[in-house]
Amino acid sequence: MERDVIIIGGGPAGMITALTAKGVYPEKSVCLVKEIGDGVIPCAIPYMIHTMSDPDQNKMGDMPLENAGVEIIVGKAVALDTEASSVSLESGEVIFYERLVLATGNKAALPPIPGIEKTGVFSIEKSLSAMSALRNEARKAKRIVILGGGFIGAEFADELARGSDAEIHIVEKLPKLMEAAFDDEFCDQITSELSRSGVIIHTDKRAFSIDGGIKAESVTLEGGKKIPADMVLIGIGGKPNTALAERAGLRITDGGSIWVDSYMRTGVSNVFAVGDCALKRDFFTRHEVPIWLASTATAEARIAGTNIYGIRVLRRIQGTIAAFSTRIGNVSFASAGFTSRMADDEKFRWVSATASAPDRHPGTLPGASEVRVKLVVAERSGIILGGQMSGGVSVGELINIVALAIQKEVTVSELDMMQIATHPLLTSSPTVYPLINAAQQALAKLRAGAK
Amino acid sequence: MERDVIIIGGGPAGMITALTAKGVYPEKSVCLVKEIGDGVIPCAIPYMIHTMSDPDQNKMGDMPLENAGVEIIVGKAVALDTEASSVSLESGEVIFYERLVLATGNKAALPPIPGIEKTGVFSIEKSLSAMSALRNEARKAKRIVILGGGFIGAEFADELARGSDAEIHIVEKLPKLMEAAFDDEFCDQITSELSRSGVIIHTDKRAFSIDGGIKAESVTLEGGKKIPADMVLIGIGGKPNTALAERAGLRITDGGSIWVDSYMRTGVSNVFAVGDCALKRDFFTRHEVPIWLASTATAEARIAGTNIYGIRVLRRIQGTIAAFSTRIGNVSFASAGFTSRMADDEKFRWVSATASAPDRHPGTLPGASEVRVKLVVAERSGIILGGQMSGGVSVGELINIVALAIQKEVTVSELDMMQIATHPLLTSSPTVYPLINAAQQALAKLRAGAK
Repeated sequence: MERDVIIIGGGPAGMITALTAKGVYPEKSVCLVKEIGDGVIPCAIPYMIHTMSDPDQNKMGDMPLENAGVEIIVGKAVALDTEASSVSLESGEVIFYERLVLATGNKAALPPIPGIEKTGVFSIEKSLSAMSALRNEARKAKRIVILGGGFIGAEFADELARGSDAEIHIVEKLPKLMEAAFDDEFCDQITSELSRSGVIIHTDKRAFSIDGGIKAESVTLEGGKKIPADMVLIGIGGKPNTALAERAGLRITDGGSIWVDSYMRTGVSNVFAVGDCALKRDFFTRHEVPIWLASTATAEARIAGTNIYGIRVLRRIQGTIAAFSTRIGNVSFASAGFTSRMADDEKFRWVSATASAPDRHPGTLPGASEVRVKLVVAERSGIILGGQMSGGVSVGELINIVALAIQKEVTVSELDMMQIATHPLLTSSPTVYPLINAAQQALAKLRAGAK
Repeated sequence: MERDVIIIGGGPAGMITALTAKGVYPEKSVCLVKEIGDGVIPCAIPYMIHTMSDPDQNKMGDMPLENAGVEIIVGKAVALDTEASSVSLESGEVIFYERLVLATGNKAALPPIPGIEKTGVFSIEKSLSAMSALRNEARKAKRIVILGGGFIGAEFADELARGSDAEIHIVEKLPKLMEAAFDDEFCDQITSELSRSGVIIHTDKRAFSIDGGIKAESVTLEGGKKIPADMVLIGIGGKPNTALAERAGLRITDGGSIWVDSYMRTGVSNVFAVGDCALKRDFFTRHEVPIWLASTATAEARIAGTNIYGIRVLRRIQGTIAAFSTRIGNVSFASAGFTSRMADDEKFRWVSATASAPDRHPGTLPGASEVRVKLVVAERSGIILGGQMSGGVSVGELINIVALAIQKEVTVSELDMMQIATHPLLTSSPTVYPLINAAQQALAKLRAGAK
């Protein structure tokens, strides 16, 4: 049977593509094929362990899709024929499309070390059943070793430490936790928050093997140190899930993603790709970057969904700016755009400036947290390349001011003169608003350099 | 004695002008003259009553100025001679300047009704002593009538209701509370939050007189209704404090402000004015508007302070967008730019769209609040004219994304495709992020209209 639009993948990218396409083209039939019947909200997986009283809370419901009139097929797409415009499902069914959108996501990477197959070793899967099983183990475990100190590793460690007395270890091969997202001073703050919660951190260390019988009993690090473990959690990231596209002969990039243009079109004119499986280009350089975020995926999904029958909305903001946030201990952390490390790697000339202030005014008001903002700024133009911050809950939206500023190529001199809303109970004082003060510091450095 | 830069006024506008000028021109002597020795943070005045354990917490300290090397004179400037470039103080001292900045603020307006002079009637003054006296009375009072249902009135009512069992009334002449800042649906939400706290609200009503002996005992409304009161609080707004400028012959606008150009220069070449005493132009129309906000004042102060010896930083963002936020009951409210009412008044053609979602994802996570966002959008261009919102604490920064979007003339189609940072514990889900969803709704309306 033919559908107008077929989307493969039930994560945020697939879901938003379906909802957008159905909203913009209500006369078209839209069908979403997903492999996992009991999908979960991916970013909230760590919080299924303790913060949620019931893992069911994290179910990604079909209601929004059903209410919009999107057909849902639970099944695995095993072959794509771009000549015939058809998709074959594992069930044997063949479905035809006018437009196809691949939203096949990514899959967890596993380190190639002995013992990885033992029971007690878990990686992150996006189904309720798998994550409920992980939850049950995690709540019983006494010694948990997490391989990988990026977002997944740090968030799981924080959540595990919050709800149990298990001994928790993180093993990270780089010198700092979360180096890919933050400059050293923020990485150090994250490390100290986790240490305060009792998490034991091993940086500059690689796992050599997972040991034990059928079940994991310890992790041995390169160099020989052995950490007893009744549970091992793999959080070393993922890679784009492109098997279907590859077999169909779609163009795959050097980084292993499905190649797409600015409008998420693959080389085949009626096939699109969005989300973690699709090429991500850096906002400033257009280099391919391994940034897999639900918020980027949903932005791409809106582009594809709106423009699937012809470009109706021009894409003015191109490339990904890698905007993300998290909460570790009682501190929120967020980043958008370049860190100074990324700017160096890409040979940008930059200055940075940092400002901090309480997020209430006066700062003695109940509930106040110290907000710290760092801006990384292009040396000549003063254009904002990136921002990082730590502080209270409102950092989650404060970073999005920086995200918009980057996307609109705002300069620090514009930011310095920006009008903002402030309130004693909700924000820093207008006299010390750290985003503006950091802009002002950066301006002073630019001026000093200009002399 | 001659100073290089003299600033008159010790509020946020004066303070930030002084700090900015001293930062940009460290070789210049900067002197700030202020009438009130014990100034307070103006926006936080309502919270001195109960939220702060000690009213001293709200003192506006001189430390930042002293640390920066700004000279402070506590005294009243009584005459300005722009020919001689001198200011005469009440003490008889005459000081000379190269550059003068007037930051004389505004003063509380009093309704012209009988009884306004009685004891027990308070208006908002910006000194610790006056506001400590108000606090003492408020904490003892059993029946408090607040005249004026704008920000001051609503915030005081909320704070009073939070900390005492006094009977609290608000009398507002307009049909809704906070009409100047919000469209009806948000005004209604504010009203219901206050009503839930027990505040008694009289809209569409004017006070006719304040009655009693020497001390206020009741307020009589037009029509004859009498409300017993042992305290009456005046919160009907203010007017620019321009006496000094007027006597010196500076140009005063029809709205009663000191006229300034885009760089805060008065007609006299070495005299500037910033903050509540200076002309405010609407961002979209350049009409004069009565918007007096600390955040606008500090933005102007940065412009004047940076450019006081020649324009060093171009002002790309001109006119005020009236960005503000508050918290009433357990709900935060915020607005920036045009409400639909303002857009109508100014004869703009607009569409609006509203979206809401929990500010955590899944929405069942602890601490989640529902965020509601309304966008008002120009009919043809899709440029964002304004945004209003209610929700949790992070609304305080979420509104600043809208504020920046307005200032950068972002369209709803750009906003629809904006990349944002999201996190389960900090923001709405990327699939339902209300700012983007409202943009999408507005786009759909624009498309429908375009057919």
